Formats: sequence, structure tokens, C-alpha cells
Amino acid sequence: MGKQVSISVIRRLPRYYRFLGELLRGGVHRISSRELSGKMGLTASQIRQDLNCFGGFGQQGYGYNVEALFHEIGRILGMDQNYKTILVGVGNLGRAVANHMTFDGRGYRLVGLFDNNPDILGETVRGLPIRPVDELEQFCIEEKPDVAILCTPREATKEVVNRLVALGVRGFWNYSPHYDIALNHPGVAVENVHLGDSLMTLCYKVKDLDDPEGDRG
Amino acid sequence: MGKQVSISVIRRLPRYYRFLGELLRGGVHRISSRELSGKMGLTASQIRQDLNCFGGFGQQGYGYNVEALFHEIGRILGMDQNYKTILVGVGNLGRAVANHMTFDGRGYRLVGLFDNNPDILGETVRGLPIRPVDELEQFCIEEKPDVAILCTPREATKEVVNRLVALGVRGFWNYSPHYDIALNHPGVAVENVHLGDSLMTLCYKVKDLDDPEGDRG
Repeated sequence: MGKQVSISVIRRLPRYYRFLGELLRGGVHRISSRELSGKMGLTASQIRQDLNCFGGFGQQGYGYNVEALFHEIGRILGMDQNYKTILVGVGNLGRAVANHMTFDGRGYRLVGLFDNNPDILGETVRGLPIRPVDELEQFCIEEKPDVAILCTPREATKEVVNRLVALGVRGFWNYSPHYDIALNHPGVAVENVHLGDSLMTLCYKVKDLDDPEGDRG
Repeated sequence: MGKQVSISVIRRLPRYYRFLGELLRGGVHRISSRELSGKMGLTASQIRQDLNCFGGFGQQGYGYNVEALFHEIGRILGMDQNYKTILVGVGNLGRAVANHMTFDGRGYRLVGLFDNNPDILGETVRGLPIRPVDELEQFCIEEKPDVAILCTPREATKEVVNRLVALGVRGFWNYSPHYDIALNHPGVAVENVHLGDSLMTLCYKVKDLDDPEGDRG
């Protein structure tokens, strides 16, 4: 129907997808917006509004079909896309990301790892050898990756991004957000990961335990 | 004034804080909600509404005082709290978190690192020795940490959280969100980090580059 859906609704979809996946694994096949609301910490009306953006999968007085909704949200998110993905920067952060993430069935396929540290070249992580960053061009021409995960040091990000954009990479999952990729390359898709934002939110929540009325208003 | 501010406004404050900090470092002392809106990808009216929740720092036709707003948001978030913080699980993820994060001046002070792997005990990260998890009790009784960062393996999280809650830890920055801390310990503050949500959002954005009208509506 081509209706524009706001990015804030899109941003909530992964959370719905996670919760629905857990329900399915727990054998739950039907759920009301009220029950979903209790589990997700959103209001029932917010949930109905969000899910209506995509055509609505619920029936009045009957609830949502968990499996249908799970698959439809997965399809909207692109979990079936299988984007070829490389990771640049295989330090502690890069290794953690490579090892902890589920890529298969989540829209991605990890196909290459790159780093500049000669001490780790040739090591394998998740069965993939760590290659020198010098080989990016040749690798990308042959493999045509769609997405790059950047765990690069602050000073390296800009140059790596410029090379990758020229090589046709059009999605960046960026752990090095000091360089503003979206501003400099408006045609690509970017998600910046700002871990510190969540840490700051926690600080507020801890303070709020002590003094729940203190800083509001 | 004690007015309840919604968690969704609180969640946007770290982003304001980051942007305002960048403006200050760039020598910008005054900014309109319209300019801030362009930089942050929020509407100007959203920004005015958010900042009004805290009493409003802007003057009509004059804009916001960047420095005053930065400090006020920092105060609301608790950036001056200096919470004593420990990190449990010093694998790749824990090391990345310990090394990449700025704790000082962001509300936290990192005081202890714990792991069960005998091969790394005694190593230092950020000047702190890695201690055995067995020493949690003694350490916490002496140091009274407020917050714990959990980079523990899935199966260890529940037991570690139970011990830490009993020892008085009341804030958790949790990278192991399979165990629902908030559900089991309603009196503590929790931020779960779901890195996969951002990766799923990116998948949507990449797909949207190819087919901007495809899955909406």
C-alpha cells in the first residue's frame, strides 16, 4: 500500500520479533495486545497502532496469531535477505561481535574478516580467516558484500568507509560512530551503535531508585 | 515539581547530551530547536516538547543555551554520580566494553573486574587486576559497588545476579539478556543491551534502499 511507516515504528519491530520468537519457542500461539503489552512494557494501544501500520494481524476479541505475526515482521525486517557481510577490525570488540551474534537467519551471512594487525592475520574466527585490509578491494570485487560491520579504531573508519562505499557496500553497522557515515554518504544505510547511551540511561534509572521524584518536572 | 517523565523521553536524553557535547567542543553556544532538529533527525516540535519536560531551557526567538542545557541534562542523567562499578566476564566482550567506554565523568567509576577463567586471573585491564568470581562477596562487602556490568556467558548470569543483588548491587548493565533480571528482581535498575535489534533495523534499511515502497502499508 506504500504508506510511509516512521522509523520509530521500524525500530520497535526487532523487539516485537524477539518477543514473538520467545513466545513461539514457549509454545504460545495466540496473544492479545494486552498480554503483549505486559511483557513488552508498551501500552496495548501503542501495540495495536504499531501492528496496524503493517495491515493488522489481529482479530477483535481473538488476539494475534503469534506465528503469522513473527513471520510477517521477519519478512518486513528482511530476515530472509541473507546479505553478504564483512567485518573490519577484529580486536576484542570485533571478535565479541563476530562470536556473539547470530547472523544466519537474521538477514546476514558473514563472509569475510579484515584487520591490519600482522600478529592476527591468518587466525580464524567463526571458521573465517582474518585477512589484511589491503585485500579489501580484491575480496569485494569477487564477493560483492552488501554490508560491513565496522569495529575499526576511530582514526581508520573514514578511509575504510570511503573504500567500501566505492566498492559497492551499502549498509554499515558502525561501532565507531565518531565518523558520521550517513552525513558523508547519503546513499547508504547506517546503524550507529552508541553503547554509552544505554549506560547513561542506566545511570538515570539507578539515581531514580534513590530519589524517584528528584529531577522530574 | 515531581512530574512523571516518560522513559521514552529519558531514553532520548543521552542522545541530546552527546550532540550538545559535540556542539560545545565545536564552540557552538546557542542553537535553535530547528537546527538541533536537523542534526538529530527529530522534529523541532518533538525537541521542544522533550526539553519542556524538564522546565525548558530555551527562549522564544533566541534558542537554547548549549552549555546550560548540556549541564542540566547531564545532571538529570546523573553524570555526576560516580557510581562504583564492577564488570563480570572479562572475555572479548568484557574487554571491549572496559576498554572502549568512558566511565569517568559519565556517572561511573570502574573499580573491579571478575572472571572465572584461571588463565587470565591477575592480568590487568585498564589498570585493574582480573579477580576470581569467588572473591565477589569479599570485594563487595568492602567496596560496596552500586552497579555491575555483566558480560557473562548465558548460563552464568542468573547465579551472578542473585549473588550481586544480595550484596547490594542495584544497577545492572546487562549484555547477557537471556536472563530477565528486572522480572526476577523488581527493585533494581536494569538496562539490557540487545545488539541484535540494531542489526535487524539495519537489515530493514538496506532492504529499503532497494525497494523503498515494498513492504510498507
